[in-house]
Amino acid sequence: MGQFSDKKGGLATQRHTGRRQVLSVIRDAGQIARIDIADKISGSPATVTAITAELLAEGLIEEHTPETPPSGSPRGRPRVALKIRGAAHMLAGIKVAAHAISVCFLDFEGQEAGQFEAEMPKPALSAPELVAFLDETLRKACEKIGVPLARLSGVGLGVAGIIDAPRGLVYWSPILTARNVPLRDLLAARLPMPVFIDNDANLVAKAEQLFGEGKGVRDFIVVTIEQGVGMGIVIDNRIYRGTRGCGAEFGHTKVQLDGALCRCGQRGCLEAYVADYALLREAGTLNLPDSPTAHARLDTLFQAAKDGDEAAGLIFHRASRMFALGLANIINIFDPALIILSGERMKFDYFYAQEVLDAVKSSVLQIDAPLPDIRIHKWGDLMWAKGAAAYAMEEVSDMSVQEMGKDVG
Amino acid sequence: MGQFSDKKGGLATQRHTGRRQVLSVIRDAGQIARIDIADKISGSPATVTAITAELLAEGLIEEHTPETPPSGSPRGRPRVALKIRGAAHMLAGIKVAAHAISVCFLDFEGQEAGQFEAEMPKPALSAPELVAFLDETLRKACEKIGVPLARLSGVGLGVAGIIDAPRGLVYWSPILTARNVPLRDLLAARLPMPVFIDNDANLVAKAEQLFGEGKGVRDFIVVTIEQGVGMGIVIDNRIYRGTRGCGAEFGHTKVQLDGALCRCGQRGCLEAYVADYALLREAGTLNLPDSPTAHARLDTLFQAAKDGDEAAGLIFHRASRMFALGLANIINIFDPALIILSGERMKFDYFYAQEVLDAVKSSVLQIDAPLPDIRIHKWGDLMWAKGAAAYAMEEVSDMSVQEMGKDVG
Repeated sequence: MGQFSDKKGGLATQRHTGRRQVLSVIRDAGQIARIDIADKISGSPATVTAITAELLAEGLIEEHTPETPPSGSPRGRPRVALKIRGAAHMLAGIKVAAHAISVCFLDFEGQEAGQFEAEMPKPALSAPELVAFLDETLRKACEKIGVPLARLSGVGLGVAGIIDAPRGLVYWSPILTARNVPLRDLLAARLPMPVFIDNDANLVAKAEQLFGEGKGVRDFIVVTIEQGVGMGIVIDNRIYRGTRGCGAEFGHTKVQLDGALCRCGQRGCLEAYVADYALLREAGTLNLPDSPTAHARLDTLFQAAKDGDEAAGLIFHRASRMFALGLANIINIFDPALIILSGERMKFDYFYAQEVLDAVKSSVLQIDAPLPDIRIHKWGDLMWAKGAAAYAMEEVSDMSVQEMGKDVG
Repeated sequence: MGQFSDKKGGLATQRHTGRRQVLSVIRDAGQIARIDIADKISGSPATVTAITAELLAEGLIEEHTPETPPSGSPRGRPRVALKIRGAAHMLAGIKVAAHAISVCFLDFEGQEAGQFEAEMPKPALSAPELVAFLDETLRKACEKIGVPLARLSGVGLGVAGIIDAPRGLVYWSPILTARNVPLRDLLAARLPMPVFIDNDANLVAKAEQLFGEGKGVRDFIVVTIEQGVGMGIVIDNRIYRGTRGCGAEFGHTKVQLDGALCRCGQRGCLEAYVADYALLREAGTLNLPDSPTAHARLDTLFQAAKDGDEAAGLIFHRASRMFALGLANIINIFDPALIILSGERMKFDYFYAQEVLDAVKSSVLQIDAPLPDIRIHKWGDLMWAKGAAAYAMEEVSDMSVQEMGKDVG
């Protein structure tokens, strides 16, 4: 990256990189003095002063004078710190799940400004139906939260499935009845602000990086289990997407030759052993009491296993062993510093019980070095939506920086 | 990384990055004029002139006047090009395999200056035995090729197993009877030049990047099958090693829960289905004619399968299906532009027959985009050694650049 690596416009790129780094350091720190920014990015104080003057002029950051001066400050005069100006932008994040659409608003500081939820009319929609429903839901959310639609600087959209984020294309998603839907552009055509779309697991990784367990960790992996099994990979502080934008696919890696049938039409996928539908498929063999929803049936199955039903126990036993095998493979391939297990299903302890972690340990390469840190982060749909809003926040932030770069570069 | 990203010494880092980029552009191009370097790195001609003057003064590059001036050159005056000065450094690369040690010498231009091979006294040695044998073999190679040992600027060592390259530590290798051997430092203590060590598959990736199919490809993956199954990952033009230096482990990812027993002591590893020892283990069940070596036994088994022996055919059939499953998993996870299948065993066509590629295709995510390019590159031990020498060349090149950076930064 740096001064020489972009084919277009050496100096403009240099300026742009500097501006992005300064903004990112301020965001990470919360509040920070200019001199400390210069230290963190190994830049000269003069450069930092020039860059922060521009960011102040555009209203992206603001000055903040702490009430109590830090000790050691000369003559007790408080040192002026810089912080992100929350009011600079308002962003919306939308997570589309099979059962519901969740919306979350964030200001430019990353402070939550409101939440909204709407039930999906049916689990899978046509492209026009989904776009109309997203448009309608976003407008309702704006009304309820009290933010005019025109006030939004960007919308981030998280969708399960195979997404080419740079092209805004949904190759396949369980919530769409059609393939190859240019969902980003379809939605953007109905809205007055830019739209960004990504695989939902990548957005969880983005949220973990900005607000969660991944803060300050250069390389980490997020694994999510819900309707499917998702993965987000952060390498060198960036989401790794692969050549066609559809890398980091974990749920459809094969854990068994000619194994269980998967929703994707292939056999032996990890999802076909551990996702909700896989557990419920096997649960159909048991004599469980009726449940109104898939969620409730899963709870009933889990309770039966807890209460000692042997067959129910075997379902979870195999699922957790397959999950451990998959996790061990990811560790063997990436040797990451940190793995975050995330998603609603983490409330069931069969996937992260000590015996699962032991199984992971016994399937990774045996070396005299500690295993990666494996952390559990339970959260619901609204946190996924927060990830989508955070994605929009970063993209909008980058656009602001680029536009300014053009003016001054 | 760029001007701001290194915590130590902003300007020196900037200079260092520029010098490394210039050297790398010259190496990639073969011969290139200063103005074209400036274009490629988006730097100013003045900066490029300053950097190349330093590289010329240190003797790392030299001027080269083409005999026929390029068309369009003003007044037919030949434009002076720059090239790497081959004589600047001589590097040795060593690949240690179970049966033999191969040595390859490269000059700083990457031109091969000689080869040497020696049989291993036994397949696995103690650390002192291996170090003594490496030392002795390198000295013999110098004598045979006619290069004084003191003339070598660096030695690269490629070893199968789990290697922490930055620390020079061999966690485990099939050629060592002990674990956790600081092999780099043990060998460096007996030699007058720096030693670099890495997993052999990473060195194949390095050789492919510098001289082979990976030239100019930003992200690619190399998979090797020989005694074991290896993988080298190049992301963003750099070898990906993971946090503990032991990432990119492919042979011990699990393809079957509670599957075949592996040399590593675990069950269900890909290696336990496709590596030499796995094929030979199953061949033990058949009535094949005696063979003097493992290599010859493998050839006999392959011939039997070709001749229609059904059991021999089943051995290769399962191995190739498992291999296809593993490759598909790698594609699902990385979505790379290119996969290079490399190593001696590629001469057997069961691993890359059309049916294997078809099996890969039917196990990766089905999207309306072409599969990654999968290329076969057959080569022997001496090419692995060339990769080791190329690794040393790059490390030494980097050291030269850093030392100069100190002088002038």
